[in-house]
Amino acid sequence: MNNSLKLHKNLGGKIKIESKVSLKTRKYLSLAYTPGVAEAVNYIKDHHASVYDLTIKRNTIAVVTDGSAVLGLGNVGAEAAIPVMEGKCAIFKEFADIDAFPICLKTQNVEKIVETVKNISPVFGGINLEDVSAPRCFEIEEKLQKKLDIPVMHDDQHATAIIVLAGLINSAKILNKDLKKCKIVINGVGAAGTAITKLLYYFGANNLILVDSKGIIGKNRSDLEDYKRELFSFSNKYNLSGNLKKAVLKADILIGVSVKRLFKKGIIQSMNPKPVVFALANPDPELTYLEAKKWGVAVYANGRSDCRNQINNALVFPGFFKGLLKRKITKITDQMKLNAAEALTSLVKNPTANHFIPSIFDKRVVPTIEKSIISTK
Amino acid sequence: MNNSLKLHKNLGGKIKIESKVSLKTRKYLSLAYTPGVAEAVNYIKDHHASVYDLTIKRNTIAVVTDGSAVLGLGNVGAEAAIPVMEGKCAIFKEFADIDAFPICLKTQNVEKIVETVKNISPVFGGINLEDVSAPRCFEIEEKLQKKLDIPVMHDDQHATAIIVLAGLINSAKILNKDLKKCKIVINGVGAAGTAITKLLYYFGANNLILVDSKGIIGKNRSDLEDYKRELFSFSNKYNLSGNLKKAVLKADILIGVSVKRLFKKGIIQSMNPKPVVFALANPDPELTYLEAKKWGVAVYANGRSDCRNQINNALVFPGFFKGLLKRKITKITDQMKLNAAEALTSLVKNPTANHFIPSIFDKRVVPTIEKSIISTK
Repeated sequence: MNNSLKLHKNLGGKIKIESKVSLKTRKYLSLAYTPGVAEAVNYIKDHHASVYDLTIKRNTIAVVTDGSAVLGLGNVGAEAAIPVMEGKCAIFKEFADIDAFPICLKTQNVEKIVETVKNISPVFGGINLEDVSAPRCFEIEEKLQKKLDIPVMHDDQHATAIIVLAGLINSAKILNKDLKKCKIVINGVGAAGTAITKLLYYFGANNLILVDSKGIIGKNRSDLEDYKRELFSFSNKYNLSGNLKKAVLKADILIGVSVKRLFKKGIIQSMNPKPVVFALANPDPELTYLEAKKWGVAVYANGRSDCRNQINNALVFPGFFKGLLKRKITKITDQMKLNAAEALTSLVKNPTANHFIPSIFDKRVVPTIEKSIISTK
Repeated sequence: MNNSLKLHKNLGGKIKIESKVSLKTRKYLSLAYTPGVAEAVNYIKDHHASVYDLTIKRNTIAVVTDGSAVLGLGNVGAEAAIPVMEGKCAIFKEFADIDAFPICLKTQNVEKIVETVKNISPVFGGINLEDVSAPRCFEIEEKLQKKLDIPVMHDDQHATAIIVLAGLINSAKILNKDLKKCKIVINGVGAAGTAITKLLYYFGANNLILVDSKGIIGKNRSDLEDYKRELFSFSNKYNLSGNLKKAVLKADILIGVSVKRLFKKGIIQSMNPKPVVFALANPDPELTYLEAKKWGVAVYANGRSDCRNQINNALVFPGFFKGLLKRKITKITDQMKLNAAEALTSLVKNPTANHFIPSIFDKRVVPTIEKSIISTK
């Protein structure tokens, strides 16, 4: 048995519930439970907003998945997804002192997921969608956010987009380039690729090319799902068509968020001088650190824990939700995401190719992101 | 602000999540989260039963309510129900080291409740239904148990029935009566009254009379809901009709589980000599201790925390679920409930009117009930 399996077996799961109140005497049992608890019940019934003061709602997040796109492992189902969701909950606790609980759904039907999450929402202050496959993730997030008065965030989209934008802002600083004018290619048009594109566009970058397994996303493509057609207005302003090789020609930046394709030497060397490559496929990146060095990549990152400038959404979601909960924000905006990315970049004063993203263990990360989350329109 | 409200506000809810694994180093982050966690995911995908070994499922219970019948306060809704469910979760932790999480539903539709709980069931090892109004509670419990491969228990029914049966067994010992031959009147035909009747019948008591707000439950009544008609086969073998006064004439035992009626002097004094009265309405019992003493009640109990022989389901559900989880029992039987009641009685060797139910703080209660829960047909 390997070390990770042993750890999971020995612990019997990675999180636990604790009582905040001692129930060792009748006095406390009577305050926390019947009959005293009736006071809290009646107060919330008459003052609806007090549910945030008197219950766990103020600090509690649901980590919700349907097990359809777990890590790079695919559609493993609800039970097999539990260890990842527990890990996420443990990260919420360790890094942001947020109480998060895993909700692993026995359905992959969009309407049923929305209905189920709506039905269990009262005890939660926010919903973190997780490892839900595209394009269902877009619809689920949108429908849920419309139905709920608490924030809903699919972090494979938005937290990933925030950390990528932060990394690119600092990469541009290192190379003394104007990120808004860079040609940026995103290979992979799932949850992450879509969200990265939209956030980069919101930031002001407007030379963006998306590539899926069949080639460049553009108007000539008749095979595209609706969510990919929506990307026409964010990308490919010169109406290019063709394959990845065609897309990356004279590109400044290449971001890999597809598990299925490697970046070969010819691809990298057709880019503009001093290229930036984020190879985010997990656990096997599209390009290794050694290849990047050998083939002239100027700034490189991947998503692995053993990478110096790890581009992982775990840097973002603890602080982001902490800000949302603290200010009882009910809906996430693009401006909040941009603010969070810029806040992250500020933690590396003089970025270099060796160090341009703060470590997840940097104690300033969570409070810095948390403070950046303020209500915006 | 009273003490209970202060406690709830200061704590911000009564439970919290803790991580069992330290994530302070890359090594542990890599084992508990990506990439190491993939091993646990793949293992569960290929060995379905291992979800009990590798995740929190083995020790985790959902405390599920729709807020329709909370304490004696009625239909307060999902948000206002949260403090009670948190209290229940805190009790699970304190007394049985079970991880329980509150699920407070934004729907009171039976089919939607069943669907929702089914959808979120993968992470849970059992479902504790709580404070759901009758007759919906019966249908929800039955449908859920059919759909799920984990145990489902509505504790307002079954845990209450178990503690009442335990109390009556010891009351009969005190008075040297044969419980199976006693005339027993149950006033209140909701979740608790129904379950108490069925368990007493299973135990072997067959002179049972149920009374609701309109009188004795019997074949002459044309106004009865289906679940009350089902009770014909468990009760009223002499086909009595009339009011509570008629029902209790020469009764040996009177159990109050209705919030709406008081037991007056005439009622009590029409019972057989040395009557037993359990006045379980909460927080205001149908009969006070002083009245009981004055009017000749031989054995008395109520459900309040300040009562010496408190008849409260909190004595039962922690140990009961601990036994279910420990032995991975998927369905609760009448025999398990009977075994649990008899196990409880064994903790008071020489019962007297002053002491015939163990205290909730008696450390033997949980392990004794837990050990009694074994698979039965």
